[in-house]
Amino acid sequence: MHQHDLIRSLREKSSSKILLVVADGLGGLPLDPGGKTELESAETPHLDEAARVGVCGLTIPVLPGITPGSGPGHLGLFGYDPLEYRIGRGVLEALGINFPVGPKDVAIRGNFVTVDEGGLITDRRAGRPSTERCVEMCRKMATIKVPGVELFVEPVKEHRFVLVLRGDGLGDQVNDTDPQEVGVKPVTAVGKDEASKKTAEFVNQFVAAAAEVLRSDAPTNMVTLRGFAKYPHIATMEDVYGLRSCAVAVYPMYKGLARLVGMTISDCGSTLAEQVNTLEKLWNDYDFFFLHYKYTDSTGEDGNFSAKVKAIEQLDAEIPRMRGLRPDVFLVTGDHSTPSKMKSHSWHPVPTLLVSDYCRSDAVTAFSEAACIFGGLGQFEAKYLLMIAMAHAGRLSKYGA
Amino acid sequence: MHQHDLIRSLREKSSSKILLVVADGLGGLPLDPGGKTELESAETPHLDEAARVGVCGLTIPVLPGITPGSGPGHLGLFGYDPLEYRIGRGVLEALGINFPVGPKDVAIRGNFVTVDEGGLITDRRAGRPSTERCVEMCRKMATIKVPGVELFVEPVKEHRFVLVLRGDGLGDQVNDTDPQEVGVKPVTAVGKDEASKKTAEFVNQFVAAAAEVLRSDAPTNMVTLRGFAKYPHIATMEDVYGLRSCAVAVYPMYKGLARLVGMTISDCGSTLAEQVNTLEKLWNDYDFFFLHYKYTDSTGEDGNFSAKVKAIEQLDAEIPRMRGLRPDVFLVTGDHSTPSKMKSHSWHPVPTLLVSDYCRSDAVTAFSEAACIFGGLGQFEAKYLLMIAMAHAGRLSKYGA
Repeated sequence: MHQHDLIRSLREKSSSKILLVVADGLGGLPLDPGGKTELESAETPHLDEAARVGVCGLTIPVLPGITPGSGPGHLGLFGYDPLEYRIGRGVLEALGINFPVGPKDVAIRGNFVTVDEGGLITDRRAGRPSTERCVEMCRKMATIKVPGVELFVEPVKEHRFVLVLRGDGLGDQVNDTDPQEVGVKPVTAVGKDEASKKTAEFVNQFVAAAAEVLRSDAPTNMVTLRGFAKYPHIATMEDVYGLRSCAVAVYPMYKGLARLVGMTISDCGSTLAEQVNTLEKLWNDYDFFFLHYKYTDSTGEDGNFSAKVKAIEQLDAEIPRMRGLRPDVFLVTGDHSTPSKMKSHSWHPVPTLLVSDYCRSDAVTAFSEAACIFGGLGQFEAKYLLMIAMAHAGRLSKYGA
Repeated sequence: MHQHDLIRSLREKSSSKILLVVADGLGGLPLDPGGKTELESAETPHLDEAARVGVCGLTIPVLPGITPGSGPGHLGLFGYDPLEYRIGRGVLEALGINFPVGPKDVAIRGNFVTVDEGGLITDRRAGRPSTERCVEMCRKMATIKVPGVELFVEPVKEHRFVLVLRGDGLGDQVNDTDPQEVGVKPVTAVGKDEASKKTAEFVNQFVAAAAEVLRSDAPTNMVTLRGFAKYPHIATMEDVYGLRSCAVAVYPMYKGLARLVGMTISDCGSTLAEQVNTLEKLWNDYDFFFLHYKYTDSTGEDGNFSAKVKAIEQLDAEIPRMRGLRPDVFLVTGDHSTPSKMKSHSWHPVPTLLVSDYCRSDAVTAFSEAACIFGGLGQFEAKYLLMIAMAHAGRLSKYGA
């Protein structure tokens, strides 16, 4: 039986509340073997107290050894199997700039590139233009019309932009036009099925027009496209889990991911304190809150060990206000690990804690990678976390008689 | 998504090297409750040091409670789900005697049996003849010709031999002719489908001819057959994992298993020291090395606790030379447990260690069953071990954006 059908058949109405705090990229590594991780180095009295009264464990974001992107990492925590529910690059990129992708859209990641007089690519990132120039070039391309389809060209950053095609019956089985090398021309788009052939035809017209419009704008005088993706059809968290859900996230991509599973997106300011204020304000209106904290990931990506330690300590400082809301189930975890040592996402399991009146506490008295190994939740795939939370929240009835 | 499709989509080129040491039947049991296992009794300073700097855990060869044969045990470690990829008894037996089974072959395990004048079986193992007699009897049967098919009769040991049919369109859905009891005649072979009916017809002709040839050779005056098996089609490790792989194994069955997944089989002598010499010699030529060490299993099968302890200590003595090659990922595990107390394979999880610059070290400071329970890798199905190793070797890119 599909996990979601099981949940649908067992879920019960309740007034209980679940608060999921996702510290992005929370897990880490010691800089030197035998040393401490970022989380182990941080002073976290409030997370440690939660670990002491709660139950801990380690989540495996996708499968052992698999490093997830933000999309799969969050889908797992939202209770969706990340190997079953896949979000294409183009859609994720569009979510990241807060573009409201819809069911008739195909979203595509674009790069500005430099081509020579013969049309051969000489720089796949167009010399990394400024974001201002990216905005200007996108404005130029926004004037392009292709009959039969609506087009949106949105700047992202430096050489990156998003192209969205909106129309009926568009497919996303289209090859990348980015050849991934220099000295050759961009590749022509070809669709694998009828719907995707339609997309490819529109896209090739767009690219031809873009080449014309950008002709005298070297080094940003051409574009390549990749990650063609339709908006995925995903049953909402309310439909599956019966949870009225609210996202308290600052960054667009995480708002977008939350919107994908049907969460309401709150207007929550830009600091963690403002996010907690938002929780307090909306506390009576939802069953499930997803609070996203970015800085544990961005500092890890920067390879800044001490900044990640500090980001963890800043999160810790707000834990009392969160627990002060008395959620029936309080969860802290990450969507993946981002060890400063690696300056990237990684596959390492993620420290996870759960506090509830019905958790079976374990011997863990500190929230850390090393301590969570001994936690009562064990190591488990992240897609099960929400089921475990639902149980502790009194929201799942007995399976079978 | 199939595990292998996931790997194919994520794998990256790298010059990193993975060394997998399989101590066959490594896991054990104490002779008396509360005592020490073989591994815990052994002096293993080098394995303990590797456990200290690395990360440990326990592999579950197939599923909890399932005792694997050598085939499933190794397939799991090679990254193939042992419940999906099945190797028939006949093929495994043929691999064990180094017979080069090919795609047109059906391999079958044979037994010499004793029949009375009425053709009823009186001894299912023909009084356990000497291997010399087995060789002699096989030589007699090798003279048998069956029109339309090529036959190979190869001695194994005592009452056991291998029969291989080579021809076009042969199936392996054929019942055992061994009735598993005395006082009855061998069963006639019947095929379930067209291809297998063809096999059955050839086999019945062979058996009739064998009864004739062996007529005056009591107690080895008849044969029974079982485990009809075709050579399985398995994608190679290079195809799936992108690893140029080399087996450094002494015993034919393990070479055969390695050949099944496309490994190159090295000529590595017969002692562990010679195996390590071979590693040193071939170190630059492959990405992945499988070193098989037999004596932890054979001593366990013999029920010889102290000999198994000694075999472990002999393995330990060679660990420094292996680690001296500086593999990016160094793995030590077993394909299953073989507790001396049970004199057989068992289902108990197998101590496993991984050393890499990117492993998250745990508190484990000794390589033992008891210590590995507290390891950071947790308990996991062996089929995931190679994925975990690939991640630590920098050979897997991020899943999803």
